[in-house]
Amino acid sequence: MNSTRDLEALIEMMAKLPGLGPRSARRAVLHMIRKRELLLTPLADLMQQVAVTARECLNCGNIGTTDICDICASEKRANGLICVVEDVADLWAMERTAMFKGRYHVLGGTLSALDQIGPEQLRIPKLLDRVQSENISEVILALNATVDGQTTAHYIADQLEDRVTLTSLAQGVPIGGELDYLDDGTISAALNARKAL
Amino acid sequence: MNSTRDLEALIEMMAKLPGLGPRSARRAVLHMIRKRELLLTPLADLMQQVAVTARECLNCGNIGTTDICDICASEKRANGLICVVEDVADLWAMERTAMFKGRYHVLGGTLSALDQIGPEQLRIPKLLDRVQSENISEVILALNATVDGQTTAHYIADQLEDRVTLTSLAQGVPIGGELDYLDDGTISAALNARKAL
Repeated sequence: MNSTRDLEALIEMMAKLPGLGPRSARRAVLHMIRKRELLLTPLADLMQQVAVTARECLNCGNIGTTDICDICASEKRANGLICVVEDVADLWAMERTAMFKGRYHVLGGTLSALDQIGPEQLRIPKLLDRVQSENISEVILALNATVDGQTTAHYIADQLEDRVTLTSLAQGVPIGGELDYLDDGTISAALNARKAL
Repeated sequence: MNSTRDLEALIEMMAKLPGLGPRSARRAVLHMIRKRELLLTPLADLMQQVAVTARECLNCGNIGTTDICDICASEKRANGLICVVEDVADLWAMERTAMFKGRYHVLGGTLSALDQIGPEQLRIPKLLDRVQSENISEVILALNATVDGQTTAHYIADQLEDRVTLTSLAQGVPIGGELDYLDDGTISAALNARKAL
């Protein structure tokens, strides 16, 4: 159809977003067209803007609109702590807790022999530089508890041994978690790391 | 945070789309930024375009980029049949089957005393006009099998009585449907409308 070519194209494009399929993309597009002034136009403008301004922080790999992200730019965050995460989404998750007052380093993935991803592809050299230049005292390895994640953590630990204190996130029962639904590994980890009340 | 203000705004806006929440909106935005040339920029451009060009067909209420949609514009579709649907999404669903060769009329909702939605709010007068002007022989009421939908169907049927043939979609067991999972109403309807093999 000619008069709906743009619509079809928009729906097709929306359907490529994670979490959206053809059906939900159609729903979303119709919803946006109904709320043109409130949703469609501002959303389009914001996307245009972000497409131009979004960039990775040259220091830590966080995504923002400046060459050096606010966290790296802020002197307050220079407390000798670096939290190493796989992905920007992990960084944002940490930030939402507002518990961590140090800086971050986003690897951008995990080591993987299969996908030929080595230290150079992962901003690991940059991390080693930063440990020197920002005289870091502790590196928190907040990598996912997957095989690749832990392999990467071990590699980094080897590189930084006896240069800084290395820590990792505690493992155990998640808040609100029910033992019955937890895997054996998590339960044993929580049991080994049990603490006195 | 200053350097992520645009990102936050974009995520917030995306989270307003049906089917997306804060978490999936974050995932979608990160995905778009990673695929900037392939996804973010073209998506923004398409949205800009649709925001400007999208409009309702003055004749049937279908959404397109022209004052009269392709279906109403095409003489091939003028076969004396009009299929009345609640919503544009329903029209698109019908079109995907490519079974119906007539034209459509989108009511834009259903009669509802509570929400003070009467015939005037629903493009029903326009439907009555079209039955005359496009000398329609049959009106297919393809409204949802909800209470409001059926109320609306009855109202339209009253208006058009003895002026055209009125039909509605057959009710029965959906293709691939399992009796065990169907409601009693559907099963009885299918039983009453049983046909000889």
